[in-house]
Amino acid sequence: MSEVEERKPQEPLHERFVQVLELLQRHRLIEESVARQGSDHQDRVDALVQQQHLAELQQTLAELHPADIAYILEALPLDDRLTVWQLVRVENDGEILLEVSDAVRETLIADMDEHEMIAAAKDLDADELADLAPELPRDVVQGLMESLDDQQREQVRSALSYKDDQVGAIMDFEMVTIREDVTLEVVLRYLRRLKELPDQTDKLFVVDVAGLLKGVLPIKRLLVNDPDCMVHEVMATDPVTFSPDEDGSYAAQAFERYDLVSAPVVEKSGRLLGRLTVDEMVDLIREESESEALNRAGLREEEDIFASVWKSLQNRWAWLAINLITAFVASRVIGLFEHSIEKLVALAALMPIVAGIGGNSGNQTITMIVRAMALDQLSTGNSSRLLRKELGVAFINGVIWGGVIGLVAWLLYDSWSLGLVMTAAMTLNLLLAALMGVLIPMTMVRLGRDPALGSSVLITAMTDSGGFFIFLGLATIFLL
Amino acid sequence: MSEVEERKPQEPLHERFVQVLELLQRHRLIEESVARQGSDHQDRVDALVQQQHLAELQQTLAELHPADIAYILEALPLDDRLTVWQLVRVENDGEILLEVSDAVRETLIADMDEHEMIAAAKDLDADELADLAPELPRDVVQGLMESLDDQQREQVRSALSYKDDQVGAIMDFEMVTIREDVTLEVVLRYLRRLKELPDQTDKLFVVDVAGLLKGVLPIKRLLVNDPDCMVHEVMATDPVTFSPDEDGSYAAQAFERYDLVSAPVVEKSGRLLGRLTVDEMVDLIREESESEALNRAGLREEEDIFASVWKSLQNRWAWLAINLITAFVASRVIGLFEHSIEKLVALAALMPIVAGIGGNSGNQTITMIVRAMALDQLSTGNSSRLLRKELGVAFINGVIWGGVIGLVAWLLYDSWSLGLVMTAAMTLNLLLAALMGVLIPMTMVRLGRDPALGSSVLITAMTDSGGFFIFLGLATIFLL
Repeated sequence: MSEVEERKPQEPLHERFVQVLELLQRHRLIEESVARQGSDHQDRVDALVQQQHLAELQQTLAELHPADIAYILEALPLDDRLTVWQLVRVENDGEILLEVSDAVRETLIADMDEHEMIAAAKDLDADELADLAPELPRDVVQGLMESLDDQQREQVRSALSYKDDQVGAIMDFEMVTIREDVTLEVVLRYLRRLKELPDQTDKLFVVDVAGLLKGVLPIKRLLVNDPDCMVHEVMATDPVTFSPDEDGSYAAQAFERYDLVSAPVVEKSGRLLGRLTVDEMVDLIREESESEALNRAGLREEEDIFASVWKSLQNRWAWLAINLITAFVASRVIGLFEHSIEKLVALAALMPIVAGIGGNSGNQTITMIVRAMALDQLSTGNSSRLLRKELGVAFINGVIWGGVIGLVAWLLYDSWSLGLVMTAAMTLNLLLAALMGVLIPMTMVRLGRDPALGSSVLITAMTDSGGFFIFLGLATIFLL
Repeated sequence: MSEVEERKPQEPLHERFVQVLELLQRHRLIEESVARQGSDHQDRVDALVQQQHLAELQQTLAELHPADIAYILEALPLDDRLTVWQLVRVENDGEILLEVSDAVRETLIADMDEHEMIAAAKDLDADELADLAPELPRDVVQGLMESLDDQQREQVRSALSYKDDQVGAIMDFEMVTIREDVTLEVVLRYLRRLKELPDQTDKLFVVDVAGLLKGVLPIKRLLVNDPDCMVHEVMATDPVTFSPDEDGSYAAQAFERYDLVSAPVVEKSGRLLGRLTVDEMVDLIREESESEALNRAGLREEEDIFASVWKSLQNRWAWLAINLITAFVASRVIGLFEHSIEKLVALAALMPIVAGIGGNSGNQTITMIVRAMALDQLSTGNSSRLLRKELGVAFINGVIWGGVIGLVAWLLYDSWSLGLVMTAAMTLNLLLAALMGVLIPMTMVRLGRDPALGSSVLITAMTDSGGFFIFLGLATIFLL
């Protein structure tokens, strides 16, 4: 772990990025001209200039923080990305791999040989190694595991035994533990002997001989209390703790609510296992909000924006296929009423309005509900009250906006009865949208699914088919 | 600021919430029965039981962390919320007001008199007061400002002079500053005299006599280095700093990238103004991802899920109105081809498929691009490459899925030419969706707007009107 405080990395980042891009472009230009000419009379000069550019690029990269290099790698197309990746210092490789997105990491690892992978991974902590392991070849992981000592190997195994989003997979093992029956003076001297403290250390963990957590000693208290005090006099005895099989997002909410920087992870017996830190929680919150946005749009996962067309297709097909089916169903609903449309073709022009407004309104409701669910704000007692409110909003919207569009339809097609049917259909479809907007996410949760998953596609399917059916049905009954 | 570490608040939170709900329900039942009977023969007994329930509720609330009370308040309908709010200890009022969402805060403040407001706000720090001030009545703010000392008043004014999302409005003023020409031993003794350190203190700020920032002393280094070292030997001289007019989300990204816990805010001259802390950044990241989700669905702002129907209508009308206009435009596009639909009514049934798949695919593209923009991954050199990739994906999707649906149309309506038109229209509309999915957010950014704002409504408007026009236009040319 490098000490970020030593540098001032963010200000010149954009500048540096532009600099990297320029150097890459010059590099490409020469490469292309060599490829075009095919001759060798200029080769020597070109090769020299080429080398000079690469050396300059390497120098620029060496001055950058690993997180910044990760950022630049993500923003580069594949060929440029690999050129830069080759120039990065080996000792930074591991940390960069941890920082980049999954999709980009895949492209980087595909470009490394076994030797490079081992060199990149060997300086990582146990929890970091566990993060990387599933994406490395089996032999490499085997080799890395053998190079670890028993305790570390146990830690990697432990981290790998939990699901990605469980606390046990997110926690790290870099904690400072102390005993309760010593003075703060002794603790201070002990810390000095450690030479370095783990990042994000805002508290020390107080354990007994058996490794049971007795409390935590916030660094703040260590600093302001009399050095002659005993640890057990000053420590907090009932701190916020997490268990390794808890959900990571639950822990993130607790970090957010109680403004934590680090917290101990203990198993049921009370034995200290590891710790969670706020930087991991920040990453988790960011990832969650992103995957929610992607899920809602029907993207399976994070996509490298320069992914190949083929990869992108795979990522997008699942929901497109579902959407194709729902669209087909809506089309067949219209098919039922082809006879009516033949008689009154205005219906074809007006029906998308009913479906479209219903979809928009339903999306508003479902977004609200999914959000309240994510924050755990919905209890059984609340939901009927909530449904009543949403239905009320839908009804008023239906009467008012449906009335407006009904008026327009009347003027446009010179038929007040068509206008009335339009208003009635809008109101009914908005009520359907509100009902489904509440029921769909609740059903998803009851089925043990993520309520955000495909919520937009599902609600739109309901309001499309429903809207067409309601409008064309009413029209068939009352107008024909 | 209470010390969270002293309690173990999160585990029993759900339990406590259920407990609060039960007590509230019992309270309501008695209230209702009194209201129903109208008689007074049971009044004395009821009143006693009533009081007992409220006392029990108050006791439960007193044991909860302010952040937990805020959570419970947000999850309660308005009447229950105000009952609970009345029972909360006054000294927690300020902190709870800071924790709840804007919409809920409004309902709580509306229930307080001036005296209560002043009592709630008077123990807050300057930056917290500035957060609350815009929502308090002018007289109350005036009164509070007069009770502050000069320095604090200046801090509140400074915080109020920045926009909500600027660093200057987010920073706090609780920093520990030291001089560079003293030993660590002196620093340690100084800290002990302070009795308490601000939350999230992971570094001390080193300033000169003029208040210019010379560096930062991470607590980690203070603890592991020899107490006889001088501060300037150990401090980091070029730390990550922010300026007060920077964008808060930019700072949040830096916190995330460099795993910061706190960072100094300095003005251009180098003078130290305040500090940013990771807990504020976590809140910011969460808020941003929420407002992005809300914006995309066409909700103006965060909505209290138990808001009145009237409030909800106001929140949702802006985008519903825009959607009504775009739906009307799409309807008029269909109107242009009423003659064609009259001749071949199958067109009416098939056209929503073309529009719907286009909308879904366009939403996938725009979600990707908006995300890449939020991470600052799009440079001018990249965008044409990206457009080419999206067009490639769209073309393949169009040919394959358009082919499938074209085949179905052929079988269903027994017309291979109709099937061909369907496939061609699908492909063209997917290409339009890809083009607009890239161009809309880029144009938004060029106009200085948030690229996520209404992106879903805009792309759907394009793919609806465009899809109807392409499909019905091709059909009119080739089939009739």
